[in-house]
Amino acid sequence: MTIIVSHPHREKTDWWIKQLQALLPNWTIRPIDDPGDADAVTYAVVWKPATGAFLPFPNLKAIVSLGAGIDHVLADVELPRRVPIIRTVGTDLTQRMREYVALHVLRHHRDMPTITANQRERHWQQLVVPPATGRTVGIMGLGNLGGSAALTLAALGFETLGWSRTKREIEGVTTYAGDAGFDGFISNCEILVCLLPLTEATAGILDAELFARLPRGASVINAGRGQHLVEADLVAALDDGQLSHATLDVFHVEPLPSEHPFWSHPRITVTPHIASLIDAPTGSRIVAANIERFEQTGHVDDLADATRGY
Amino acid sequence: MTIIVSHPHREKTDWWIKQLQALLPNWTIRPIDDPGDADAVTYAVVWKPATGAFLPFPNLKAIVSLGAGIDHVLADVELPRRVPIIRTVGTDLTQRMREYVALHVLRHHRDMPTITANQRERHWQQLVVPPATGRTVGIMGLGNLGGSAALTLAALGFETLGWSRTKREIEGVTTYAGDAGFDGFISNCEILVCLLPLTEATAGILDAELFARLPRGASVINAGRGQHLVEADLVAALDDGQLSHATLDVFHVEPLPSEHPFWSHPRITVTPHIASLIDAPTGSRIVAANIERFEQTGHVDDLADATRGY
Ligand SMILES: NC(=O)c1ccc[n+]([C@@H]2O[C@H](COP(=O)([O-])OP(=O)(O)OC[C@H]3O[C@@H](n4cnc5c(N)ncnc54)[C@H](OP(=O)(O)O)[C@@H]3O)[C@@H](O)[C@H]2O)c1
Ligand SMILES: NC(=O)c1ccc[n+]([C@@H]2O[C@H](COP(=O)([O-])OP(=O)(O)OC[C@H]3O[C@@H](n4cnc5c(N)ncnc54)[C@H](OP(=O)(O)O)[C@@H]3O)[C@@H](O)[C@H]2O)c1
Repeated sequence: MTIIVSHPHREKTDWWIKQLQALLPNWTIRPIDDPGDADAVTYAVVWKPATGAFLPFPNLKAIVSLGAGIDHVLADVELPRRVPIIRTVGTDLTQRMREYVALHVLRHHRDMPTITANQRERHWQQLVVPPATGRTVGIMGLGNLGGSAALTLAALGFETLGWSRTKREIEGVTTYAGDAGFDGFISNCEILVCLLPLTEATAGILDAELFARLPRGASVINAGRGQHLVEADLVAALDDGQLSHATLDVFHVEPLPSEHPFWSHPRITVTPHIASLIDAPTGSRIVAANIERFEQTGHVDDLADATRGY
Repeated sequence: MTIIVSHPHREKTDWWIKQLQALLPNWTIRPIDDPGDADAVTYAVVWKPATGAFLPFPNLKAIVSLGAGIDHVLADVELPRRVPIIRTVGTDLTQRMREYVALHVLRHHRDMPTITANQRERHWQQLVVPPATGRTVGIMGLGNLGGSAALTLAALGFETLGWSRTKREIEGVTTYAGDAGFDGFISNCEILVCLLPLTEATAGILDAELFARLPRGASVINAGRGQHLVEADLVAALDDGQLSHATLDVFHVEPLPSEHPFWSHPRITVTPHIASLIDAPTGSRIVAANIERFEQTGHVDDLADATRGY
């Protein structure tokens, strides 16, 4: 019974092997490029695996994504469809995302970018903004992360809207679903938060057409995936004033290349994919528990739905 | 029946007169420097009144502070002790302070100052911080503002402590009171928020001795009054690493003079006394309602306790 680990960074691979070995002493844990007996491999723990990475392992029972998203696994066109994918989520991830969304929505709401710019100019300017009760925030994606972030924003007093594929009921949140519900949702969002998974349907969703449907001067926070955003459309919407600010945690290429214009755009805040960076010890406990439970029962709550794509 | 208005800025005085006149059509509303019949003056609506400002008005029934604090009124050594002082508070003020405290505590917690500095350097650095459940935040002052801010922080997941003069019970918050409770409180606060009123007992409370009792690397947010802080002690504690960051909304002199070193200190965030800047239309409705209620009943909930000093 072998678990293989695949991570783009060698030292991260080594860390995960050591950590999982301590938590799962009865298993053999090995790097994907030195798996030992390939037929003995029953689980793969992965972040951004290479195309075809799973072909040598005919007895895989499940692939564990080291993250909430499974887009980096589904990107493998050779992926054997029969193998279930387990997401790594949990209260720690949800808690951290709640914090990130609350922080950045409040930061846009209270116009901290202008206050920070004023500090640099030694300029005392008492901007009056409405209270949160007079501000409408919308969340795209009402899953583990978006649903809990929506509750947090509502508790802070914001007028909170949410949008998902199927209709969700969340206390204190006005919810919309699908294409039919999109216009009622998007046309009211003064601050828009993207917490969608990356799928064929959601890639490029943050584009010129969407920005044009937001109220003028709205702002956008993307904590989903970089590929949700059409970068050139964002810059155009900021430059023309349709959008006032954007905070981005995720990018087409990560780390964001040092020559990328987002770093120095005065109305873009860059955070380095840390919205909900689970700390590795907590993450490894979740991964180990999910593997043990799946091995015993053939099921875990965090199973992704490959036909749905997330 | 005359209400006089006193505000350091002429245009604000004029705005308040116009606004209150619309809300209280049966009253005469005049500026303090042109009051008409002084004996007819029964209410004074004030922000930072001059010393002796109330001596000409023997029939004052109440002084209305245009703010939650009454320190600017008590600063008048000629103040007639018999006249009650009405504070201007309300859900709008509480809501805005909740937002400010949540924003700035989250900002310290998630180390946004470093993330912002990294953006300027085009530096991708994935700092891992504990979740809020592993972070202890303390609030000094558990009144209208501090009490509601404490509830908000607890709801965001922070380990929340509170300190007041008399013992308060707040759900989800560990509370301490008075000198006896101070050490148990202060020695645990990784992020400290001051929401005390300014009194003889609290002036200069944020000093070297207090900073030394905080855990090393703690940060401080002052949204009370500038005089709570000993400025030189803050700079020394930041420079020596005992404190990591400070966010200040209030200052000894406001507006903060443009030559003041706080503007350019890399570990001080300056906000221009906007933590809970009530919008004037809402504030004027509260002031008018308080005057009407006090006139009819001789009582309002927002009465300050002059013997207590806040
Ligand atoms: N920046 C970070 O640090 C970070 C960390 C973790 C995760 N993430 C990203 O956050 C994403 C969401 O995570 P999660 O755990 O909340 O996912 P989840 O539980 O699977 O929820 C996804 C939500 O998006 C909705 N959705 C999916 N496709 C849609 C479509 N075409 N139109 C409208 N709504 C659609 C779903 O609708 P239904 O409710 O109808 O299913 C669901 O509400 C992840 O996929 C990942 O990309 C980012
Ligand atoms: N920055 C801004 O925009 C802004 C806006 C509004 C107000 N403020 C400031 O915020 C302050 C607080 O407002 P509030 O409405 O919450 O006041 P409040 O309702 O009067 O509450 C004051 C709190 O401080 C505690 N306290 C007073 N003296 C103390 C002492 N010596 N030691 C320990 N605790 C003490 C009180 O204890 P007890 O519970 O035992 O009475 C009470 O919990 C105002 O006075 C004002 O200076 C700032």
